[in-house]
Amino acid sequence: MWRLLASGERHVYPVNPNVSEVMGRAAYARIIDIPEPIDLAVIVVRSSQVPTVLQECIQKGVKAAVVISGGFAETGEPGTKLEAEVVKIARQGGIRFIGPNTMGHADSSSRISTLAWTIELTPGPVALIAQSGNLGNRILLGGMNLGIGFSKFISAGNEADLHLEDYLEYLGQDDHTKIITAYVEGLREGRRFFQLAKEITARKPVIVIKAGGTTESARAARSHTGALAGSEAVYAAAFRQAGVIRVEDDDKLCDVVIALLNQPLPRSNRVGILAIGGGLGVVATEACEREGLVVAPLTSVTIDRLSALLPPRWPHANPVDLVGMNATADNSVILASLLALMEDENIDAVLLQAPLAFGVNFLTNIFHFNAEEIKAFEERQKSNLSMLRQKVSEYGKPVFVVMPVNDLETNSYFLRQGIPAYASPQRAARVLRHLAWYKSYLDSNQR
Amino acid sequence: MWRLLASGERHVYPVNPNVSEVMGRAAYARIIDIPEPIDLAVIVVRSSQVPTVLQECIQKGVKAAVVISGGFAETGEPGTKLEAEVVKIARQGGIRFIGPNTMGHADSSSRISTLAWTIELTPGPVALIAQSGNLGNRILLGGMNLGIGFSKFISAGNEADLHLEDYLEYLGQDDHTKIITAYVEGLREGRRFFQLAKEITARKPVIVIKAGGTTESARAARSHTGALAGSEAVYAAAFRQAGVIRVEDDDKLCDVVIALLNQPLPRSNRVGILAIGGGLGVVATEACEREGLVVAPLTSVTIDRLSALLPPRWPHANPVDLVGMNATADNSVILASLLALMEDENIDAVLLQAPLAFGVNFLTNIFHFNAEEIKAFEERQKSNLSMLRQKVSEYGKPVFVVMPVNDLETNSYFLRQGIPAYASPQRAARVLRHLAWYKSYLDSNQR
Repeated sequence: MWRLLASGERHVYPVNPNVSEVMGRAAYARIIDIPEPIDLAVIVVRSSQVPTVLQECIQKGVKAAVVISGGFAETGEPGTKLEAEVVKIARQGGIRFIGPNTMGHADSSSRISTLAWTIELTPGPVALIAQSGNLGNRILLGGMNLGIGFSKFISAGNEADLHLEDYLEYLGQDDHTKIITAYVEGLREGRRFFQLAKEITARKPVIVIKAGGTTESARAARSHTGALAGSEAVYAAAFRQAGVIRVEDDDKLCDVVIALLNQPLPRSNRVGILAIGGGLGVVATEACEREGLVVAPLTSVTIDRLSALLPPRWPHANPVDLVGMNATADNSVILASLLALMEDENIDAVLLQAPLAFGVNFLTNIFHFNAEEIKAFEERQKSNLSMLRQKVSEYGKPVFVVMPVNDLETNSYFLRQGIPAYASPQRAARVLRHLAWYKSYLDSNQR
Repeated sequence: MWRLLASGERHVYPVNPNVSEVMGRAAYARIIDIPEPIDLAVIVVRSSQVPTVLQECIQKGVKAAVVISGGFAETGEPGTKLEAEVVKIARQGGIRFIGPNTMGHADSSSRISTLAWTIELTPGPVALIAQSGNLGNRILLGGMNLGIGFSKFISAGNEADLHLEDYLEYLGQDDHTKIITAYVEGLREGRRFFQLAKEITARKPVIVIKAGGTTESARAARSHTGALAGSEAVYAAAFRQAGVIRVEDDDKLCDVVIALLNQPLPRSNRVGILAIGGGLGVVATEACEREGLVVAPLTSVTIDRLSALLPPRWPHANPVDLVGMNATADNSVILASLLALMEDENIDAVLLQAPLAFGVNFLTNIFHFNAEEIKAFEERQKSNLSMLRQKVSEYGKPVFVVMPVNDLETNSYFLRQGIPAYASPQRAARVLRHLAWYKSYLDSNQR
């Protein structure tokens, strides 16, 4: 109720036989007493009352409901029977519903949200279906902190009526949704999921966290939503064949999303590394190799170009170490070296571990710059990043940043300029692996 | 010079034949012209001048130097010869030095720092040796952001004279240092390192990032510091036998350090999980199992105690789901459930994914609490955390927090109260694995 009113929705009618008003709105004893037609019923009564309430919704001509109430199949035998009864009533009455045992849903274009406690969705092209309300909220809030905007969120709950597969089908056709993400414990219609996914991933990336892949977690998933986690090997193969990008947790889900929102897919998995400091290059190289990326040999053209830019003792190989450069100096050499790497025909993507830009706090607190120095530095770095964005789109080669010193403010500065910045080379390399894999999937399915 | 003056050090003498003063201090043409005795020479001249400058230091009676200058073995054959010449001069003159090609060092107790650009070390019990100055800085700044204090930092550089092993030996005996961390590309005295480590880990944890474990990264490491990365399998076995905790990157290094600084070692690897929401429990369980931890069965005593606290539909098993609890309500039930888990004889450590506390911004922006509500909530959570700290130390069982909604401010709130909070269950589980392994190492070596 609070969330709906906060979104500015005017046609909200509280139904409660025990009070005369709720949050300043006149309360109705039953839904059939409301004088206006009702599009959506949000049901938050105890489970034993849900059948009666649902029957009244049907009488009222409601076609859609969100059943937030818990106490159904997730609680054992009597709850399972009650849930079956609710489904039967809904089917007979022609009403479709989310839940029960859902945390609600949200739609950023209509601004309708039935989520009790989270903040309003930042509008954007990413949809999320979650077989756990809390985990869904974790992804939403974490993602919005990174500037990710969401089109739709559905906490799937027990999926007594509408299944995760229904939401997937809908989002596949939804023009507000360009990227689909999901937290999955188990699929009720596995075959349908994979057929839908195969069709959708040709047009929109689908990114999934699949939990319950170990013995005890599968048991816990069963007790949570009654979902059968199923064979890990079968899921892995099916995701692969359907072009679904599978990630291990919500951080990595957001990592992939910010890359897909801002950068092109790499043609293949050959990466160039530009680092200020040999150690950073070593660690980034190891991270890339462990993710199956190729730290590609440079062409002689690139070596000549870099030799003209860097001191003679640069390593003349990939990873490129900007030997002993002063990070506070003019960083046009970093940009020029980066462009040389991007133009190398052996390289499909660049991992940049050099200070092409900094957040203002960093310039103040670490470099001790005064206001004038900050202004001059910022102008240079903005023009550098604008040039970089242009080249990324011209060459179709993604560039990921990992700052030599991990600084949230600087990472978010890069991201606002359309360049994803990650906390560690491991995370950047993992994202590049996913993107290169997805590209190869698309290529082999288009042939 | 700037860093030394900023630390308040008064006995700083610039040496530069081309100017009359540096940062307001009279400059000397040569070190031998300084009228006072000199304890430490910081050498930042071009490499070809280092032999002469070092000879003058010896004339002056200097016993220690930091050679920041680059252009030695890391650049190829002529540099290697020059480096050998410098070592020969130092040995003959009885001077020991860090570097060359080092970013400097820092000591938080004397406040002497030769680091050019980083902020001052926050004093504390953690020492860091880094075979990469930039990576060292990454760890220092990332760690200090998390509230980790440092005793000493050494950027090892080319290790022409003093080796990583010398620093390790020193730190093993240093009373200001309780935890030793290192970024290692290759060991010059492998056998000595492992003998020292084996002796030190019985008293102080040693945590190492070892890079260069893949083909291309080993090649890059060779070009960086001339270190031979060596066989991955040999290193892995040697670290294991010496009780060295090996982590994969700087995030995970800091994760382990904040646990060791705040929590006891678990007796073994049996973990209890308390989550608000089934999905969170499923994901945490999977993370623990993948790290080789045991999500232990609960005793009947614990099940009875939890049944008295939670609604009947709680899953009656580990992971414990606080089914449908309102996070904004009084969280004494969370604390009571947590204590019940901690008191279970089957459980050595608890992973808490429930809102026992929140940062103030979270209470304001997400829960929309007013000032009075915030004050009441804060008082409750402070008293809860104080009770928790007491029980952690009483039972000797570590508790790690992963907030249902990842919120940096809340994580840092927990950490300030002595309870490590991690961004994801995967990271918490990884830390628990390291701690349980270290405990089992200590146990088997004490028998």
